[in-house]
Amino acid sequence: MTTQMKSSNTVWHHATVTRDRRAELSKHKSVVLWFTGLSGAGKSTIAHAVEEQLHQKGYHTFVLDGDNVRHGLCGDLGFSDADRMENIRRVGEVAKLFIEAGVIVLTAFISPFRADRDKARQLIQEDFVEIYCDCSLEVCEERDVKGLYRKARAGEIKHFTGISSPYEIPENPELSINTGGKTIEECAAEVLAYLVKRGVYQEK
Amino acid sequence: MTTQMKSSNTVWHHATVTRDRRAELSKHKSVVLWFTGLSGAGKSTIAHAVEEQLHQKGYHTFVLDGDNVRHGLCGDLGFSDADRMENIRRVGEVAKLFIEAGVIVLTAFISPFRADRDKARQLIQEDFVEIYCDCSLEVCEERDVKGLYRKARAGEIKHFTGISSPYEIPENPELSINTGGKTIEECAAEVLAYLVKRGVYQEK
Repeated sequence: MTTQMKSSNTVWHHATVTRDRRAELSKHKSVVLWFTGLSGAGKSTIAHAVEEQLHQKGYHTFVLDGDNVRHGLCGDLGFSDADRMENIRRVGEVAKLFIEAGVIVLTAFISPFRADRDKARQLIQEDFVEIYCDCSLEVCEERDVKGLYRKARAGEIKHFTGISSPYEIPENPELSINTGGKTIEECAAEVLAYLVKRGVYQEK
Repeated sequence: MTTQMKSSNTVWHHATVTRDRRAELSKHKSVVLWFTGLSGAGKSTIAHAVEEQLHQKGYHTFVLDGDNVRHGLCGDLGFSDADRMENIRRVGEVAKLFIEAGVIVLTAFISPFRADRDKARQLIQEDFVEIYCDCSLEVCEERDVKGLYRKARAGEIKHFTGISSPYEIPENPELSINTGGKTIEECAAEVLAYLVKRGVYQEK
C-alpha cells in the first residue's frame, strides 16, 4: 500500500474492518438482547448478570439502560409518549452501531409499547432478540426497589407503566423468563443457553 | 451467588463489568480519536486505515462517521446550525458509550465549529483526542472526491464548509497531521505512534 493522498487520483480507503472480521477475532457473533418488562421485573439485573458471565468468557458486551442513556444521549428527552418513542428509537440505533462493532448488546428498558419494540426489531432485524421479563405487577410492586410504585400510587409520578400507563406484553418474544419465581442465576442461565442454541457463541 | 429475585429483600446486582476490566481483557485502553478537518482532508480515510492496523493487533475499534450516523441515529436531523450541533452532541454521547464499552472510537466528521468540538471534549474529558487533518482548501477542492465542492461552488449546496460556511481551525489539537503532502500510511503511522506514546497500548 503506497496510496498517495496528495494525488488528485487518490484511491480512497473505506471500512475494511467488517462485522465478520470482528466476529472472527472475538469468537462470538453480535446480537441485541432486548429485555422488556415492568419496572422491577429484573431487566437490568439479569442483563448485568448475563454480561458478567459473558465477560468472564472473554466476550465483548455492553449494557444500555436508563443509567447510561437517559442523562446523556437522551438527556434532551422527557417522558411524554413522543419522547419515550424517540428514546427507544435512539437506543435501537445505538444498539445497531454496537452490533456493527461486534458487541453483544443488552438493552434494559421497560419499552412498554409493542409498536416501539417492533420498530427496534425492524431496524435490527435478525439480530434482535426480545426477552420478556415476565413478572406480575404484584411482585414488582412488592419489591419496589426504587420506591417508584409507591410514588406512582401516591400520584407523584404520572404515566407510570403498570399503574397509570399500559404495558403491552410481547406476543412472540424470542425468550420469556418468569422472573418472579427464579434466582438471578437461573434467569441468566436461560439467556446463556439461548445464546448457545442460537449460535452466538459455542460452548467450550 | 444464590440471590433470590422473588424475595422482597432482593439484592440487586448492577454493572460489574467495568471499563478497567474491559481494558485488562483487551490489552488496550479506550479513547476517542476525534478527526476534524475540511471535506476531503482525509478524516475518514485515515480513521479507517488506523482502524485496520489496530484490528490486526487484535484491538477493538469503531469508526463513527456520516455513513453510519447520518441515516440512523441522526436521521431526524438536517444541516442547520442547530441540527449540526445536535448531530455532534449525539456523536459525542455515543462515543462516550463506546469508550465505556472499552472500544477505541474514531470519529470522522467535519465538525467545523470550535464550540461543538469543545463540548465533545468537555463530555469525554481526558479521553478526547482531537486530530486535525490539516489540508488546504485548494487541495481538498482539487481532490473533490465526492463532487461536493463543485456543487457548492455552483450554489447547489448551501452552508458548505470552506466555501459558504466557516471552518474553525483547532487551536490546541492533540495531533495535527498535514495530510496534503503525505501518504495514507504515513498519516496512519503518526496516529499509531501517538497512541503508543499516550499509553493506549504497548508496542509489542
